[in-house]
Amino acid sequence: MSKYWSRLVHQLTPYVPGEQPKMANLIKLNTNENPYPPSPKAMAAITGEVDARLRLYPDPNADRLKEAIADYYGLAPRQVFVGNGSDEVLAHAFCGLLKQDQPLLFPDITYSFYPVYCGLYGVDYRTVPLTDDFQIDIADYNQPNGGIIFPNPNAPTGRLLELGQIEQLVAQHADSVVVVDEAYIDFGGQSAIALIERYPNLLVIQTLSKSRSLAGLRVGFAAGHPDLIEALERVKNSFNSYPLDRLAIAGAVAAFEDREYFEQTRQQIISSREFLVKALQEQEFQVVPSKANFVLARHPKCSGEDLAAALRARGIIVRHFKLPRIEQYLRITVGTDDECRTLVDALKEILPELKG
Amino acid sequence: MSKYWSRLVHQLTPYVPGEQPKMANLIKLNTNENPYPPSPKAMAAITGEVDARLRLYPDPNADRLKEAIADYYGLAPRQVFVGNGSDEVLAHAFCGLLKQDQPLLFPDITYSFYPVYCGLYGVDYRTVPLTDDFQIDIADYNQPNGGIIFPNPNAPTGRLLELGQIEQLVAQHADSVVVVDEAYIDFGGQSAIALIERYPNLLVIQTLSKSRSLAGLRVGFAAGHPDLIEALERVKNSFNSYPLDRLAIAGAVAAFEDREYFEQTRQQIISSREFLVKALQEQEFQVVPSKANFVLARHPKCSGEDLAAALRARGIIVRHFKLPRIEQYLRITVGTDDECRTLVDALKEILPELKG
Repeated sequence: MSKYWSRLVHQLTPYVPGEQPKMANLIKLNTNENPYPPSPKAMAAITGEVDARLRLYPDPNADRLKEAIADYYGLAPRQVFVGNGSDEVLAHAFCGLLKQDQPLLFPDITYSFYPVYCGLYGVDYRTVPLTDDFQIDIADYNQPNGGIIFPNPNAPTGRLLELGQIEQLVAQHADSVVVVDEAYIDFGGQSAIALIERYPNLLVIQTLSKSRSLAGLRVGFAAGHPDLIEALERVKNSFNSYPLDRLAIAGAVAAFEDREYFEQTRQQIISSREFLVKALQEQEFQVVPSKANFVLARHPKCSGEDLAAALRARGIIVRHFKLPRIEQYLRITVGTDDECRTLVDALKEILPELKG
Repeated sequence: MSKYWSRLVHQLTPYVPGEQPKMANLIKLNTNENPYPPSPKAMAAITGEVDARLRLYPDPNADRLKEAIADYYGLAPRQVFVGNGSDEVLAHAFCGLLKQDQPLLFPDITYSFYPVYCGLYGVDYRTVPLTDDFQIDIADYNQPNGGIIFPNPNAPTGRLLELGQIEQLVAQHADSVVVVDEAYIDFGGQSAIALIERYPNLLVIQTLSKSRSLAGLRVGFAAGHPDLIEALERVKNSFNSYPLDRLAIAGAVAAFEDREYFEQTRQQIISSREFLVKALQEQEFQVVPSKANFVLARHPKCSGEDLAAALRARGIIVRHFKLPRIEQYLRITVGTDDECRTLVDALKEILPELKG
């Protein structure tokens, strides 16, 4: 508290990101990072950019990157916006599109940054409960609103809303912007980017932090009608002209161009997820059906908090949320097969201790 | 215009950064970049960071970088805030510290992003005219205010306000936050960071884009009382947890550690500035006294617009602002000695043509 703070600062409840421990030799399954390195071509492109040109500002519009993303998805570059991680892209969307007279709607269990953005920009919002089995029921959104946002697959549940349902929702709310936050879409869903040509009120946001294994580089993007993109550009150009540095632009372009590596690693993660789900179920865990690179699971006889602590004592970090409805659950990132096996073996030791 | 935009977006007048031309072989003296490459140690540190760890999120607090900056200036890390270029740091300062009931004050001729931030965050402001010779007179700021901000040296004038004057101003406005934007301080001024221990209302903002030659990497920082820093952290953590990527953190740390290279290149730029000023004066230019890596100069017989166009036709880009009081001026970045000579030679050809 300080008399020098603006009124807003006193009211903020900042987001708390998952822990980035500084200890080595941990099995880190807490922040949904990709267990595989980025594309070797992306790393080569970054290294190739480390030279005297770093003295020069980057392209403020990152045109090369917009073109690479547009090319990948069959869009025009003016349907693409890029930013410093999807968190920055989301922030600009809350400021430029989702702040309206009617309240914004999002699920009660979802990415916990959404209410934080609402606090930052003074966006009125209302949460819409997921069904008992953690699904989004689009009928629940039939109420006056100034916008709708949800992750798909949802986080931290991992549940996917099918593309047909998304299309219905977007069509039913033609006067509102619907933002689909697809951080995890590449692990088993179909992107709603396929719909943007037909729906001028649909904005799809993605990140390179998960399926493209570049969390350390900070690149995210949005795809939508050029009018929606223009709103984001206007906010961005009133905030920071150059959010993407030269290395991030180069690495992200190469990551999009290396389709083979992308396909191979995401298929591997999907396959590891299926192994992990099966192994957890064999130990009596109840696992929410996931199309993401993480699973949300609870054990009927052990609390999520105790399990997380016991895993941590064995050098394995998973995420536990002290939040209504999911307090008994663990959110476990899908690691390599080896990491998944180590986790499963640790649980085999832990469960009898905790139950007994 | 779109019905989907928030009310704010309709009102924004975004900032227009200096051109980043995509043509090669231009002499680019328009955006105050450093003519020398970044420290070789900074480039080596970046290259050393390009590996599998890019799959992991960076440290959201960038502690290593805060420590390196604190070490350089003899501060504690909790007196330091870091962000994605000083533009992002400035944005958070406008949101978290400068939005108050009374209007913010800044010079009439100054960094043109300031009124843009005011538009983004709804900050009421009043401009305070510079003196006829483009100086800040601190007596002019003796009026009710909710904060004061100015660059030192000022941009695009290049004029320095002496540290003693800054101390007086900060002491006289103990109820307001005074932000000194020191993007160009290393080219001839004394940093007001020396004062922050004594004045809890002083925030100093710097960038690595100019004197540390890392415009392409996007790193800026603020130094001030921990309460002021906390306001910035609260805003940042409500906006984007990880604004600095792994490569930016590594490069910025090494740039601060390589004091020898920093000293050598900034001294060279100061020396080139003195050469450039003298050569311009020999051609009858009126040059505003500069302590920055650029000079603001006008010719009594040729318009700034014509001069900029004629230089451009010869492959030399300088900046011309169509703004009151400085419309007749050119802002010329100090390049290498060779670049300065090429500019001076071009002017020798251009001036007789334009005058005749």
